[in-house]
Amino acid sequence: MLPYKNLIIIDKKSNVAVYKQLAFQLISLIQEGKLLPGTELPSTRMLADDLQLHRKTIMAAYNTLVTEDWIDNLPRKGYTVSLRLPVVKPRSYNTNRLSSYKGSSSFRFDRMETLISLANPPVGARIVVNDGFPDVSLLPTEAILKEYRNVFDYTNLNRISTFGDADGSIELRRSLCSFLNQTRGLDIGIENLLVTRGAQMAIYIAASLIIRPGDKVIVSEPSYFIANAAFEKLGAQLIRVPIDDEGMCTETLEEILKHNDVKMMYVIPHHHQPTTVTMSVDRRNHLLQLITAYNIAVIEDDYDYDFQFQYDPYLPLASGDHGGNIIYIGSVTKVLGTPFRLGYIIATKEFLIAAAKLRTIIDLRGEVVIEHVVSGLIDNGELMRHIKKSNRIYAQRCDFLADLITSELGNIVNFTKPSGGMALWLKFKQEYPLSRVLSKANNMGLVLTGSVYSKGKDARLNACRFGFASLNEEEMKEAVSILRKSADSIGN
Amino acid sequence: MLPYKNLIIIDKKSNVAVYKQLAFQLISLIQEGKLLPGTELPSTRMLADDLQLHRKTIMAAYNTLVTEDWIDNLPRKGYTVSLRLPVVKPRSYNTNRLSSYKGSSSFRFDRMETLISLANPPVGARIVVNDGFPDVSLLPTEAILKEYRNVFDYTNLNRISTFGDADGSIELRRSLCSFLNQTRGLDIGIENLLVTRGAQMAIYIAASLIIRPGDKVIVSEPSYFIANAAFEKLGAQLIRVPIDDEGMCTETLEEILKHNDVKMMYVIPHHHQPTTVTMSVDRRNHLLQLITAYNIAVIEDDYDYDFQFQYDPYLPLASGDHGGNIIYIGSVTKVLGTPFRLGYIIATKEFLIAAAKLRTIIDLRGEVVIEHVVSGLIDNGELMRHIKKSNRIYAQRCDFLADLITSELGNIVNFTKPSGGMALWLKFKQEYPLSRVLSKANNMGLVLTGSVYSKGKDARLNACRFGFASLNEEEMKEAVSILRKSADSIGN
Repeated sequence: MLPYKNLIIIDKKSNVAVYKQLAFQLISLIQEGKLLPGTELPSTRMLADDLQLHRKTIMAAYNTLVTEDWIDNLPRKGYTVSLRLPVVKPRSYNTNRLSSYKGSSSFRFDRMETLISLANPPVGARIVVNDGFPDVSLLPTEAILKEYRNVFDYTNLNRISTFGDADGSIELRRSLCSFLNQTRGLDIGIENLLVTRGAQMAIYIAASLIIRPGDKVIVSEPSYFIANAAFEKLGAQLIRVPIDDEGMCTETLEEILKHNDVKMMYVIPHHHQPTTVTMSVDRRNHLLQLITAYNIAVIEDDYDYDFQFQYDPYLPLASGDHGGNIIYIGSVTKVLGTPFRLGYIIATKEFLIAAAKLRTIIDLRGEVVIEHVVSGLIDNGELMRHIKKSNRIYAQRCDFLADLITSELGNIVNFTKPSGGMALWLKFKQEYPLSRVLSKANNMGLVLTGSVYSKGKDARLNACRFGFASLNEEEMKEAVSILRKSADSIGN
Repeated sequence: MLPYKNLIIIDKKSNVAVYKQLAFQLISLIQEGKLLPGTELPSTRMLADDLQLHRKTIMAAYNTLVTEDWIDNLPRKGYTVSLRLPVVKPRSYNTNRLSSYKGSSSFRFDRMETLISLANPPVGARIVVNDGFPDVSLLPTEAILKEYRNVFDYTNLNRISTFGDADGSIELRRSLCSFLNQTRGLDIGIENLLVTRGAQMAIYIAASLIIRPGDKVIVSEPSYFIANAAFEKLGAQLIRVPIDDEGMCTETLEEILKHNDVKMMYVIPHHHQPTTVTMSVDRRNHLLQLITAYNIAVIEDDYDYDFQFQYDPYLPLASGDHGGNIIYIGSVTKVLGTPFRLGYIIATKEFLIAAAKLRTIIDLRGEVVIEHVVSGLIDNGELMRHIKKSNRIYAQRCDFLADLITSELGNIVNFTKPSGGMALWLKFKQEYPLSRVLSKANNMGLVLTGSVYSKGKDARLNACRFGFASLNEEEMKEAVSILRKSADSIGN
């Protein structure tokens, strides 16, 4: 017989009736396999003696278990653990065998036909060149795991499991403010910062608060296509301003502002997406003047500010005079790598109060686990160390790729070495149509997952991004060699 | 002198010019502090001998470093590490000392005035009762940390750092499909499942695809207020259908459907939020008939299906015949606890293609780290073990709280013990206005962070949710005792 006296602990001060406590604990013993099907239970008298309880209490517990099919009361054998234990078997209703999800639904919905689907590279590609993403092999994984362990310490886990803030955990907002004030010449408090799942959510939330259907929104041409898609989904009418070697042409911009009621503007002053151009000081100052003169809301997308290779990087526009009109957006994903998702919006307090409300209905709030991990990495300096280390390596890779492309593809491709970031913008000569070059490259095992401008009205650009940050020299050599062969096979 | 021969490694096969390799490595030595400011470098001849390179190569490297201010070429001393090392000091422009973020912006935006802000409980509350959240102290933290370690294994991290899918990592979708088919009587494939950041994002995405401004949307009365807020933000006109002890009144619903062009319906058949009512079989069958007869899109929010205490739980409506019209939404957050955020949408393939496109512009994609962790926990059975263990404990806590409230607050509060979930719905008698009771309770250190219906038109409900899952018996006793004292002080 089991040592029931040791296994069953009755708390007579508890508000749970004693017979219920006993029944629960017997069920646990059955579920844990300590009481196997067919096992005879002690008689009510024996168990009452053993546990120092009244026999009627044991009886009540046994009866509960009989009712719930955990035990049987068999003639001559007494109470025995049931051979047909109750299994949690849900009740089904009105169900046929074929899933209702196999066909089409009969209600109407928006099929988002104007939007494209992003796809992963095909499995089996020999070499994948991305849009410009960090190299995850440089991550301080032990330091990161230490932060996860820290979060899962019970005291911490319990403390952070209250409802949570739509604008991010207070710890991460403090850490990020301090990090951003130090690195970007800002002077913000936590009321100026809202943590999002990534830069894209930051763009979507900010734009949703500003854009009403029909509003005119200025973007560069070309510009980050997923941001454009978000603005158009919100009903914006896009006005495209050309971009040259000094960034967006603010002279053209001024002419547009004179003749149009423009609601919002989207700019990427550092290593512009896709062209990698960094905006000049003169243009920056001109842009700041226009922003305040015309009361335009500006989303400044500064997704990879942390990666600048020269010794005198520009501060963001957000650190200048803009009367609170710049909504500054950044990304931690671009620092840690794509497996992590975290971004932020910096704006006036009143704007962020509205942003937090909108975030609540879109997403409730963020994941405090990753928020605390990143907060820890900022506070102990690991994030900054990682940025410095990565920056040095990316600068070397950028130089290496630039030299390689000059020597291997110099007669096919034009490009300007960027002052930072993680990608080159390769402009192929018109004799080498990119769609054809890349299709041939695919056949040789090279897949470019980054932005490619080669079809329809984009054919005049005939350009693509080539992310160098996550490739080693051998991989870059192989990729460029495949591009060379693909182009040659068209040229000949 | 430093052992340059050992410290500097030149790869003559590299495509990076040798002088550049040398310059980079000297910069690294300076940055690492191995070459301190003022240190004299070896002469070009000495270093050329030491490294077996041409003297002109050394010269080219030194000249680069001089140009970039890392070293000086001093008369009589030769090349010396600079005393004024280039610091990454960003160029500032047009900046005043006061942050532009301290004031107001001058552009127009939607202040979301009709939405409420959710707030965390005040720091220092002695006891916090939530809306019904899991107990994080029951989590298998070692098993979870093991999954994180697994993700940070280099091979895995590299593999999962490609662009990523807007509908979730393929691994998690496979694991979740199998888990949901087993537990919910579904028969879905990965094309029927999209992973979101949480149930709220699932609701927002699904509703955004369906609702156009002015559309009629049916909700229960009362219903989950954050879902209502999302529908209203999207322009829905809400039609409220009463809820009784058997769930939403489908007879009333049918009358409404006969006379209105209804676009969508939002239902919570298991442990309804806020009332904890579980819908009866008759009502479920009636609802399924109405859905197909009227071609209504239905969001079935089944946020805590996994926690049912009886031995014959109901399957979700989604497992019945609905012609693909039910969009089924669930939450992993309700299993693991609020520090984690993960949810999903189950629908027809065509609906999810649109959902993935919308998700791209809202959020790009999820965080593969947590997606892989949860996938691992499903595959090795830890998630299911955790659910079974939690379910047993929550059932005990539910019984305990129900007994406690009957004995302590029986003359003040009405409630029906729910068949699952993590909260009781306490209906206070009208003589005890909840706003007053809770204000007094606050003063005694008790804060309820869950749904409270006590103001304006909700005053007739005079009810609140009392989450029991994350409280131990002592905490429940203290909370109920404070409620008792608060009510008594009003009654007297």
